[in-house]
Amino acid sequence: MSAVDRQLEELHETITEAVPADISVTEVKYEGPELVVYTRDPKRFARNGDLIRDLASQLRKRITVRPDPAVLSRPDKAREAVMRVIPDEAGVTDLDFHEDTGEVVIEAEKPGLVIGRHGSTLREIAQEAGWTPEVVRTPPIESSTVSNVRNFLKQQREERRDILERVGRQIHREKMSDEEWVRITTLGCSREVGRAAFILSTPETRILVDAGDKPGSDDVPYLQVPEALGAGATNIDAVVLTHAHLDHSALVPLLFKYGYDGPIYTTEPTRDLMGLLTLDYLDVAAKEGRTPPYDSEMVREAINHTIPLEYGDVTDIAPDIKLTLHNAGHILGSSISHFHIGDGLYNVAFSGDIHYEDTRLFNGAVNDFPRVETLVLESTYGGRNDYQTDQADAEAHLKEVINETVEQDGKVLIPAFAVGRSQEIMLVLEEAMRKGEIPEMPIHLDGMIWEATAIHTTYPEYLRDDLRDRIFHDDKNPFLAEQFNQVDGGEDERQDIADGDPAIILSTSGMVTGGPIMSWLEHLGPDPKSTMVFVGYQAQGTLGRRIQSGWDEIPISSGGGRSERLSLEVDVETVDGFSGHADRQGLEDFVKTMNPRPEKILCVHGDERSTQELSSALYHKYDIRTFAPKNLETFRFV
Amino acid sequence: MSAVDRQLEELHETITEAVPADISVTEVKYEGPELVVYTRDPKRFARNGDLIRDLASQLRKRITVRPDPAVLSRPDKAREAVMRVIPDEAGVTDLDFHEDTGEVVIEAEKPGLVIGRHGSTLREIAQEAGWTPEVVRTPPIESSTVSNVRNFLKQQREERRDILERVGRQIHREKMSDEEWVRITTLGCSREVGRAAFILSTPETRILVDAGDKPGSDDVPYLQVPEALGAGATNIDAVVLTHAHLDHSALVPLLFKYGYDGPIYTTEPTRDLMGLLTLDYLDVAAKEGRTPPYDSEMVREAINHTIPLEYGDVTDIAPDIKLTLHNAGHILGSSISHFHIGDGLYNVAFSGDIHYEDTRLFNGAVNDFPRVETLVLESTYGGRNDYQTDQADAEAHLKEVINETVEQDGKVLIPAFAVGRSQEIMLVLEEAMRKGEIPEMPIHLDGMIWEATAIHTTYPEYLRDDLRDRIFHDDKNPFLAEQFNQVDGGEDERQDIADGDPAIILSTSGMVTGGPIMSWLEHLGPDPKSTMVFVGYQAQGTLGRRIQSGWDEIPISSGGGRSERLSLEVDVETVDGFSGHADRQGLEDFVKTMNPRPEKILCVHGDERSTQELSSALYHKYDIRTFAPKNLETFRFV
Ligand SMILES: [Zn+2]
Ligand SMILES: [Zn+2]
Ligand SMILES: [Zn+2]
Ligand SMILES: [Zn+2]
Ligand SMILES: [Zn+2]
Repeated sequence: MSAVDRQLEELHETITEAVPADISVTEVKYEGPELVVYTRDPKRFARNGDLIRDLASQLRKRITVRPDPAVLSRPDKAREAVMRVIPDEAGVTDLDFHEDTGEVVIEAEKPGLVIGRHGSTLREIAQEAGWTPEVVRTPPIESSTVSNVRNFLKQQREERRDILERVGRQIHREKMSDEEWVRITTLGCSREVGRAAFILSTPETRILVDAGDKPGSDDVPYLQVPEALGAGATNIDAVVLTHAHLDHSALVPLLFKYGYDGPIYTTEPTRDLMGLLTLDYLDVAAKEGRTPPYDSEMVREAINHTIPLEYGDVTDIAPDIKLTLHNAGHILGSSISHFHIGDGLYNVAFSGDIHYEDTRLFNGAVNDFPRVETLVLESTYGGRNDYQTDQADAEAHLKEVINETVEQDGKVLIPAFAVGRSQEIMLVLEEAMRKGEIPEMPIHLDGMIWEATAIHTTYPEYLRDDLRDRIFHDDKNPFLAEQFNQVDGGEDERQDIADGDPAIILSTSGMVTGGPIMSWLEHLGPDPKSTMVFVGYQAQGTLGRRIQSGWDEIPISSGGGRSERLSLEVDVETVDGFSGHADRQGLEDFVKTMNPRPEKILCVHGDERSTQELSSALYHKYDIRTFAPKNLETFRFV
Repeated sequence: MSAVDRQLEELHETITEAVPADISVTEVKYEGPELVVYTRDPKRFARNGDLIRDLASQLRKRITVRPDPAVLSRPDKAREAVMRVIPDEAGVTDLDFHEDTGEVVIEAEKPGLVIGRHGSTLREIAQEAGWTPEVVRTPPIESSTVSNVRNFLKQQREERRDILERVGRQIHREKMSDEEWVRITTLGCSREVGRAAFILSTPETRILVDAGDKPGSDDVPYLQVPEALGAGATNIDAVVLTHAHLDHSALVPLLFKYGYDGPIYTTEPTRDLMGLLTLDYLDVAAKEGRTPPYDSEMVREAINHTIPLEYGDVTDIAPDIKLTLHNAGHILGSSISHFHIGDGLYNVAFSGDIHYEDTRLFNGAVNDFPRVETLVLESTYGGRNDYQTDQADAEAHLKEVINETVEQDGKVLIPAFAVGRSQEIMLVLEEAMRKGEIPEMPIHLDGMIWEATAIHTTYPEYLRDDLRDRIFHDDKNPFLAEQFNQVDGGEDERQDIADGDPAIILSTSGMVTGGPIMSWLEHLGPDPKSTMVFVGYQAQGTLGRRIQSGWDEIPISSGGGRSERLSLEVDVETVDGFSGHADRQGLEDFVKTMNPRPEKILCVHGDERSTQELSSALYHKYDIRTFAPKNLETFRFV
């Protein structure tokens, strides 16, 4: 009998003893980080109010109780019982019964009403129906990504349970080593922005944090060194993804092509956004005639291996490591990944990308932890002079530009990233129109912006408190404002818009490197009354950067491999201050107010100058041991 | 056809074109770093004086020419021809004909006379006999180690040729990566003395430098991390052994138990000493009731996989790495390992253990290189105050102690390491007696000292110039002085010596942790007229350290697991200054006069204080970037 089986047998005995005599426990098994308890008496289990919570705290494990398949009521019976308990106002849109696990997945417009106060309604459902309820939100705006992911996972339930059981047994395996050390290896993203990838390793465990690409370059992280996949795909125990931006996520599906078969820990919105962005990444590669490094099947593998965590959940992901994700304030679902290693041995936090101040979309990054000895900190704006306009000034500037353009009867064209900056601008524009600071006019959303917005509204828990509350009420949901129009009529619609009255257009890609913005350039580029407004960072080598720096003639593909030149007459403006990254001040404030203050900081995710200047400043101001690592180095802690 | 086969075919063609038309080339293959050329016309080949040298420089390879087996003359005929050419004074003691390769191994007392001026006699042998001659020295003092190793390698010729061919093909494999980087990973020996083990890695190649144990501890190097054997035994391309001390070599045979099957590059005397010391290491473990980590079969594997290099040989050991060993002045065959990486990309030198000044036994360490960007430097005596008595003072002190002891009719007992310090002391004593500075009396050598001395005399090329010359003449060989007596009569002989006239006894182990010194303690420990003299470093926790620091009662095993206490009446003295390691001044001088001066230095092989103080001093004095790494860190260069 393996050590895990012995452990499960002991847990089975302990639980049997802990529950009342009239509750039978038929099986106990691991599924990912959770302990699943099967019972022939699910209703009695549910009736004993605090039983599960008490068990969880006694065993220090996350516990799910499921009915033994032998005692399941018929789904039609159960459906009636479930619907009897849930109030009508919850707006149930789907019920999905899984006889293999005795779970019923309830999709509802108002999940809170299905859960009830402290989970009381959920318990009542279990008690009445004898099935284990699980709740998801009906997207307030239809999202094909969300529904594709959910349908896919529905089809994959059996394979997924196998994966989860295997992962669960891995997590709870016996410790093999008596030694104690903690190391971080930089596989990318050091003295550069992009190709984020780090290995956190102990004698027991190796965790890969992120696996991204490098925008404007073919460089990929050093995944093939022995510290990572060079020692075989099973050398990596788990992947943790801080957020969905491609410079962190693009190569995650590739891991599965290399034979990786373990879990990905991340938030639910990051999982969905990763799906959206990596599929688009493959699409763009194909359109540009490059061979994509993997195919869409690998994206599905990645989704199937994802174990979603909520902010604040403390989760065992290895015999010696607990992971907790915290809000990073950067994009939807972005997280700071906090690792607690050993029994109080050491704590490491990877910032991922952070925004320290609150924005309209998100609460500012969390910098309060039980313990952190080493922080791996992004340094995008870590340079000595990387201070940004504050958001109020940025918004005023944007409104001014819009008003001037409208006065001369022009249109406003804003290239924007689908995820994050677009939604931030949408919120600014919606409020400005509501308050009469800019005239009411249509705001056209082109590219993936609308889809990304839909994903945002599916996960309001991840948005800033007051925005979340507004989304919960349809009539106050700012993204449902009637000005917003998704451009879904192709070139005809764009032509109509270009020929029409003043309007604002938000279109991808954010750095004018492809996508519908190219078409908008043709429509509006020659129009001296219109304005093109850059609201995000334009990387070296992109067309956006060229236009921003004054080029007035640009190449435009005219089909058939030929290209023409387009003269730009449009007014070009740059509005600073909408970045999703903390600026130099924000980074310093993050560290200054961090609780507890870390002993060591590795400055990464910035160019050589930014990482070194930030490293040096943090050392001198806060007397912390700081480093600006190079790629392929290993730092030992403990 | 593989890339290596294609390469060999091209070499075959090139060589055929380069040699005169009447010389046939039947086969060309790699054996380790050498290119072996088979010919049906070995005599004509030999007659064309500079042909081999010209080919070697044209192809930039080490070349060996061998007769095609089909054209070999009969061994008895060849024997006559060989003996006709070699002058009688060469003192040939054995001729060994290998029909598989057409080589004749000539063992002679004066190898120089078999080689001739610039190899002229060797060429003449080949020319007359049609066999390829190889010369080894007849040990001037019989060494069972040397003869065991030579006999073993004789039996293993076929397997060894297979190994060499496989290694040769590995070395000359096609480069697989376009990337360029150089890294060093510390697997041990960082902020500690012992368990030396480093990985030098490039995108193409991973070299393990040393694999030792840690005296007075069970700690072993971190060989199981993915950077080393955790990624599989084939992850390591080659092992380089700086010298035979167990803190560098003890675990080299273990690698073969773990599945390693590649080459070990080191000097010939280090190979033999490694055999001697690791077999003794297994012996000691068995005697102390510990399970040895491997058995003697693995020591033979290690010897069979060793490719001996001479100081100064520039040798391809991987597609992107050339290795050159240089004298380190520390013990017989000890080397500084210099790696030239890529085509002028980067150069790294590992000092191993060094002694910078000349000693009686060895020339001082080489510190002159074509290029070195990074130096990995031992720091045993790197501490701020680690200055040692100079050798002249140390010798005077030793002679004074001896004279005082003799005057009171006592005996002098010196615990000493078999390899290195013993021979140094032997030279001091022999000279002192010859010059009348101390009285003539027997010098008894107990334990492995005599055997180690025999190995020293087998390789006089590795000794200090003037000592080498003296060994070449039997009547001047100091190790053959009549005072020296190998104790081979066991306890009876020891009792006789203890009961007899004044004498000096050198006995292992050097730190009084076992071996015959324990018996000598019983004989002489209670004798107030005798003196025990420590001439080497006594580590914390050893009995030697306790006696040195004044213990006057020590436990002595009395057989059957019982132990008694022995009262020490013997006089205890410590004579500093015979260390095999550079002291703080020597380390500074090594760096100060190093040519060229390195850009970076990693200070290792010293305790935390020593490495940090040396690191700091070298930084401040010479403005070199210095580090005191921890174990399990990786540094990136380039
Ligand atoms: Zn990001
Ligand atoms: Zn990023
Ligand atoms: Zn033979
Ligand atoms: Zn040594
Ligand atoms: Zn050493």
